[in-house]
Amino acid sequence: MCDQPGKCSSNSFKFAAIQIGAGTDKALNLQRAASLVAKAAKDGAKVVSLPEYFNSPYGTEYFKLYAEKVPDGESCRSLASMARQNQIYLIGGSIPEADGDNLYNTCTIWGPTGDIIGKHRKVHLFDVSIPGKIHFQESEALTPGCSYTTFDTPFCKIGVGICYDICFAELAGVYAQKGCKVLVYPGAFSMITGPTHWELHLRSHAVDNQIYVVGAAPARVATASYVAWGHSSVVDPWGTVLIETDEKEVIVQADIGKNL
Amino acid sequence: MCDQPGKCSSNSFKFAAIQIGAGTDKALNLQRAASLVAKAAKDGAKVVSLPEYFNSPYGTEYFKLYAEKVPDGESCRSLASMARQNQIYLIGGSIPEADGDNLYNTCTIWGPTGDIIGKHRKVHLFDVSIPGKIHFQESEALTPGCSYTTFDTPFCKIGVGICYDICFAELAGVYAQKGCKVLVYPGAFSMITGPTHWELHLRSHAVDNQIYVVGAAPARVATASYVAWGHSSVVDPWGTVLIETDEKEVIVQADIGKNL
Repeated sequence: MCDQPGKCSSNSFKFAAIQIGAGTDKALNLQRAASLVAKAAKDGAKVVSLPEYFNSPYGTEYFKLYAEKVPDGESCRSLASMARQNQIYLIGGSIPEADGDNLYNTCTIWGPTGDIIGKHRKVHLFDVSIPGKIHFQESEALTPGCSYTTFDTPFCKIGVGICYDICFAELAGVYAQKGCKVLVYPGAFSMITGPTHWELHLRSHAVDNQIYVVGAAPARVATASYVAWGHSSVVDPWGTVLIETDEKEVIVQADIGKNL
Repeated sequence: MCDQPGKCSSNSFKFAAIQIGAGTDKALNLQRAASLVAKAAKDGAKVVSLPEYFNSPYGTEYFKLYAEKVPDGESCRSLASMARQNQIYLIGGSIPEADGDNLYNTCTIWGPTGDIIGKHRKVHLFDVSIPGKIHFQESEALTPGCSYTTFDTPFCKIGVGICYDICFAELAGVYAQKGCKVLVYPGAFSMITGPTHWELHLRSHAVDNQIYVVGAAPARVATASYVAWGHSSVVDPWGTVLIETDEKEVIVQADIGKNL
């Protein structure tokens, strides 16, 4: 490790994506996340990501119920504690954020000291309507973000997007131009778009920008109102899928960042 | 069909990619191409593409030997005739072009009248050196082009790149912004890059830009000094591979362009 954040070019480090499914009990969701983050850190992970909506079920009817202020709510306090106790960089998946009258789909990012070092509000809200297949209008409940989100680690600069943000190659390109060597997308693709586009986007952003790309998905909960595809993955700059899991609850870990 | 080139938005048309391998006999290469182009047109194709270096073996040692002036050489005369006789738009794969002291990897484009309506000089020359696997330096013999190449048809505007040009997502993005609804890449990917990246680029450019993308590959000639991957493909804006062949000599045809 070097001591010049964003300047290192040849360090590898262990990345872990925590694939968990959220239920309706927020405290239990946080507790389960904390347990798996601790396990990943114990196994050597230096940067860990939780999935989209790890503290809440996924659905427009849940966002307001589970929303918290950032960084004052209980989910942020829990995330700060996870990062500090395990001495890791933690990409906090996403949670519904309340800010005045607006709700956002927000990823908070935490340093090893437990300080918040970044916040990404999902820029591209997922509105889809395919007759007979899926109808989901995230914009009915949420306000989009409008900012790029990168943060420095001793290993490399990392860029963050949330779920549908991955469908916009320009965002990945901008992050690469800003010097990011790793992009992380907490994302709950659906059972329609998952098998069709999830791996395609992860691989093409990696190859097009010659960087590592991580997709941090929730585990599949077959009984949920929104059933996620799962398939957390880590892809290298050659487009090789280093690790891909299926839909079960699991910690996905890979050494990444070498020779960047 | 409407009479406003580049303005139509809902016409589909039959596209054919001619997957042939070139030998050392240029006249025979041209004759074989003409025969398959005529067959594709007879089957209803309105736009046809030949593969990269359809008139010449692929290798830096061949480029000068097979090079011709554009549009004065025998290959261009043959292409003009193919387009006129079959009343089609013809994307003439590529040929080595001689211009002064420079050689280019050039795609000529022909209208149904037999007039040349576009010319693309490969912008990104393929220089690769992977110890023990492949060493190929196109830039040892060729000069790169520096222009975008699009042309209008009664169906839609079409953009053209050659082989390694497909590895640069920005080019595809520029073409889409210029209004292209179909991109065509005559391309001879290798046995290394073919299975790894050919389909990835075709699919990601299609999805990222919501357009059709065609890869027009040569058939595989196992005895050639450069063995091509083949796998001509037509991909729709959803990223679905409508048609993908393997390495054999074949005409790949698909109805494309609907609802663009």
